[in-house]
Amino acid sequence: MKYKLAMVQMKVGSDKAENLGRAEAMLREAAGAGAQVLALPEMFNCPYSNKAFPAFAEEEGGQSCRFLSRLAKELSVVLIGGSIPEKEAGGSRLYNTCFIYGSDGALLGKHRKAHLFDIDVKGGIRMKESDTLAAGDGATVVDTEFGKIGVAICYDVRFPELIRRMTLEGAELVVLPAAFNMTTGPAHWDLTMRTRALDNQIFFAAVSPARDLEAPYVAYGHSCLISPWGEFCAAADSREGILYGEVDTEYTAAIREQLPLLKHRRPELYGAGEKR
Amino acid sequence: MKYKLAMVQMKVGSDKAENLGRAEAMLREAAGAGAQVLALPEMFNCPYSNKAFPAFAEEEGGQSCRFLSRLAKELSVVLIGGSIPEKEAGGSRLYNTCFIYGSDGALLGKHRKAHLFDIDVKGGIRMKESDTLAAGDGATVVDTEFGKIGVAICYDVRFPELIRRMTLEGAELVVLPAAFNMTTGPAHWDLTMRTRALDNQIFFAAVSPARDLEAPYVAYGHSCLISPWGEFCAAADSREGILYGEVDTEYTAAIREQLPLLKHRRPELYGAGEKR
Repeated sequence: MKYKLAMVQMKVGSDKAENLGRAEAMLREAAGAGAQVLALPEMFNCPYSNKAFPAFAEEEGGQSCRFLSRLAKELSVVLIGGSIPEKEAGGSRLYNTCFIYGSDGALLGKHRKAHLFDIDVKGGIRMKESDTLAAGDGATVVDTEFGKIGVAICYDVRFPELIRRMTLEGAELVVLPAAFNMTTGPAHWDLTMRTRALDNQIFFAAVSPARDLEAPYVAYGHSCLISPWGEFCAAADSREGILYGEVDTEYTAAIREQLPLLKHRRPELYGAGEKR
Repeated sequence: MKYKLAMVQMKVGSDKAENLGRAEAMLREAAGAGAQVLALPEMFNCPYSNKAFPAFAEEEGGQSCRFLSRLAKELSVVLIGGSIPEKEAGGSRLYNTCFIYGSDGALLGKHRKAHLFDIDVKGGIRMKESDTLAAGDGATVVDTEFGKIGVAICYDVRFPELIRRMTLEGAELVVLPAAFNMTTGPAHWDLTMRTRALDNQIFFAAVSPARDLEAPYVAYGHSCLISPWGEFCAAADSREGILYGEVDTEYTAAIREQLPLLKHRRPELYGAGEKR
């Protein structure tokens, strides 16, 4: 099976309606260009900052969810809805959540970022998501008409075990809405995305907001699609735009036959160090 | 703690005595240059081929083990003995085994390659180690005067779970005697070594034989030492030579404090996909 993936590397500003409008225009363009699976970046409706998350948060089924569902159905695409700040129904906790819709507009699943980004690199980036956000408690693989698609968010990718779990559950494409920054992006973005694809012999798509030097948090950009051999299928620079790539599951099967990494795993050897 | 590591990227030929002599000269040179931990490449005493393994195999404590022990003691170094074909005592099975000696000449541990290299890349490399070799059954971390050092061999590195386990068992340096080839080397060597170091926030050293275009199996070379931030500390080209690098565990601690990946792991989320 082959299908066309669109990674929407959009600018995200401080006005939610403008963000939704910009997303809509780019999603329409991508669908018009023949893309069948469309993906938005992390926090596509909201500035990436602890100040903004509470103010922009919505419950499941709110404005941004209805927006995504409507467009998925109208454009007849699978839509990986980047992420938004989600307020739990009937509670006060906030999550960094990706909602995923099928081409009939139905919710296929959602992923709540499971690893919160709390880092403090000397001379570089400082961020503490856990000041405002709670962590999700699961790995997310959804069934779509294009096979199983795994979804994780940004810092989740730092944990190879999570991507491995999605692979073992059958994901042949993993989509990562993500906003690396100007410290970790140049140092680790390409490296990490490529290795997750290679180790798991999957297609791996990372979708970043466009770089905006005036934003409170400057995203790295460089959205990309990586092949199961660890090569770039498509790569963006830092500017706003739609990146297209082709996912080909027959290529995945060929790679897995020639270099049978998944078959050669020996899980009985891996557990002793867990110290749970 | 800081110490100097030497990666001996030596040519390996079809004469065992010559291979040992060449190793000895380079180990003496490395110790003379102040290196405290010395590492040899995969199959340093034997051509990398299924034809050669049985003929070159020795039991534990045989000629090559005595050679390594003697030199570790005389040079007063920790010696990661690359690997040799090991014949099991009192049996017929062969292993691809790394013997590790302390500066008093005592055996600190041994690693038997746990993932056998059976691949068939179209238009590229074909190799089936399991035609002659059996697989080891463990992860290997040894206690040394320079802290805990993990050892894995070549194809073992393809399995992030194994390197993770060694990290969780306390290894701050992992040494990988390895002989990638001209298909997988250019495609995956740098990428994989760098990500193992980065994901686990360890120093990671890969030690290859020098490239010999006339050998039955052409090794990639490119021995390297990677930092816990995923950067090259030192990198060789394909030619014979000794590569030096510094391991600094205070740097490791600083990286782990600034970007606390190991602390942020959530093992309770990773198990469901194992399908053991």
